[in-house]
Amino acid sequence: DSTLKVFTLNSNPSLAEEIAANIGVELGKSSVTKFSDGEIQINIEESIRGCDVYVVQSTCEPGNQHIMELLIMIDALKRASAKSINIVMPYYGYARQDRKARAREPITSKLIADLLQTAGATRAITLDLHAPQIQGFFDIPVDQLVGVPILSSYWSKKGLEDIVVVSPDHGGVTRARQLADRLKAPIAIIDKRRPRPNVSEVMNIVGNIEGRTAILIDDIIDTAGTITLGANALIENGATGVYACCTHPVLSGPAIKRIENSKIKELVVTNSIPLQEEKQIDKITQLSVAPLISEAIIRVHEHQSVSILFD
Amino acid sequence: DSTLKVFTLNSNPSLAEEIAANIGVELGKSSVTKFSDGEIQINIEESIRGCDVYVVQSTCEPGNQHIMELLIMIDALKRASAKSINIVMPYYGYARQDRKARAREPITSKLIADLLQTAGATRAITLDLHAPQIQGFFDIPVDQLVGVPILSSYWSKKGLEDIVVVSPDHGGVTRARQLADRLKAPIAIIDKRRPRPNVSEVMNIVGNIEGRTAILIDDIIDTAGTITLGANALIENGATGVYACCTHPVLSGPAIKRIENSKIKELVVTNSIPLQEEKQIDKITQLSVAPLISEAIIRVHEHQSVSILFD
Ligand SMILES: Nc1ncnc2c1ncn2[C@@H]1O[C@H](COP(=O)(O)O)[C@@H](O)[C@H]1O
Ligand SMILES: Nc1ncnc2c1ncn2[C@@H]1O[C@H](COP(=O)(O)O)[C@@H](O)[C@H]1O
Repeated sequence: DSTLKVFTLNSNPSLAEEIAANIGVELGKSSVTKFSDGEIQINIEESIRGCDVYVVQSTCEPGNQHIMELLIMIDALKRASAKSINIVMPYYGYARQDRKARAREPITSKLIADLLQTAGATRAITLDLHAPQIQGFFDIPVDQLVGVPILSSYWSKKGLEDIVVVSPDHGGVTRARQLADRLKAPIAIIDKRRPRPNVSEVMNIVGNIEGRTAILIDDIIDTAGTITLGANALIENGATGVYACCTHPVLSGPAIKRIENSKIKELVVTNSIPLQEEKQIDKITQLSVAPLISEAIIRVHEHQSVSILFD
Repeated sequence: DSTLKVFTLNSNPSLAEEIAANIGVELGKSSVTKFSDGEIQINIEESIRGCDVYVVQSTCEPGNQHIMELLIMIDALKRASAKSINIVMPYYGYARQDRKARAREPITSKLIADLLQTAGATRAITLDLHAPQIQGFFDIPVDQLVGVPILSSYWSKKGLEDIVVVSPDHGGVTRARQLADRLKAPIAIIDKRRPRPNVSEVMNIVGNIEGRTAILIDDIIDTAGTITLGANALIENGATGVYACCTHPVLSGPAIKRIENSKIKELVVTNSIPLQEEKQIDKITQLSVAPLISEAIIRVHEHQSVSILFD
């Protein structure tokens, strides 16, 4: 069978190291630097002819830079005769631009899928796409892994009692249900609505949270507005404590300050996006997706189903 | 006939304004901003159904950002039913990565051409591509304009005497010949070579420069090493003065300091790449390519040949 190689780019070097170690290979030798004018320079420093190559890169901030690195790397691998080019994108950037919500908007999620294929990607492995429809934007196989099992085993070990799993909006109810099933807990939903235009939103809570410990769950936490307002509303409505979790800690702009000032006791995230030092605050716990992703890579390489990893 | 619209992105807004004014249209209404996490948000604020759209964007520094802006804009225009999407790229970034100079390098110039087409570009208008072969990387029509006429009329008006046009390296001789023809001047070549490995380069000058005013010409000046070392070699070898010109003022890293400290009396460039304030030094004169590009757009729109613009 052909040789499996794992390469990293600049988004998640330590995750890639961990994945390579789990699989039992050395990380492929390459350098990704910049020319004086900021253009990306990539050197692959070992032969990859006939190899199955896995490239680890989340397209997190700086997203445009990380996307270009990935595209240029795929081009170099293709021209260097890789047998297959498997992109491992724990975080798929631009996922929220997945439809025309207004006239004349781009659908950047679809564009990115097209660009990756044009460059020469032959397969993608991702984690918790913002919308499952994004899989359909690709014409190559996409294995979408799920973060809920990682989050739920953390919460199980923590041993909180009288839990209620809460979705911070209507769009996240399915995800809340998945976590609740694993924790054998009921769910609740924060039902935001604007009674009339130009009147501020009302936070209504559907489900019973009184006297319970709430665990909020979302896929992405970006500016953390939704989750922190939601946490405060839960406390006001009688929850005894609020925890939160998500797969992708984008945490841009005011996010860290909002989380620190909120009623959230602990926020649990994965390392699909690494946390820069200023984001590594006491309230945030980061869990590694390396075991999940390495297992997926091994199974893909051995032509085995990855769906077993969803349980 | 269909309506002509000109849009700008963030690389060259004032050039785009000038082009629109020359053509006699208002610049298309759009905004190109960033979400909190740095992802690009584009809003096209007027209908472009059935229109011939021209989008002005050089992929100069920050190049990856400017490329992504252009790709996302093309996607939005395509989905908004533009009749044709004509990209106007006065400076085509990544042009120097146009071949595998070493094993396992990417050919990023070709990749960018593919990405632009995948997004939906139907035609490209460019200026002085680093290598003419890059035209062949596209499967859509490419009109390549030339900067030499703009530079040569500046030098003609300046009225320097006893000119010799000098190419700073072997690759630029054709360009030097084109300028020399227009100025009715002879040419010379700076013939750099390394006598043995690990011995420093020798600058030999082919052609007669003694007692003459030299005008160095290149397509791109990036870190300005070649051009400033060349200028000093010309003076040492008897030139009475040295001027320089190029189409694309990349001017990264030490470029400005090198130019200021060099024997170059004046450097003439175009606005294919705008000069940030710290680069607007007395020695640098910037000429506008707006008249050339507007004329090209009008001719393309009216299905007329643009080759008349090369004279
Ligand atoms: N990077 C981003 N940051 C914030 N909002 C975004 C981003 N990308 C897209 N959006 C917007 O988010 C909305 C979709 O989010 P959602 O309703 O959660 O799927 C759309 O209105 C998008 O225009
Ligand atoms: N942005 C850049 N800055 C400096 N050198 C580059 C850049 N892009 C490509 N190159 C290198 O420049 C060389 C080609 O330049 P040239 O010989 O002038 O065509 C190749 O070795 C490229 O790897």
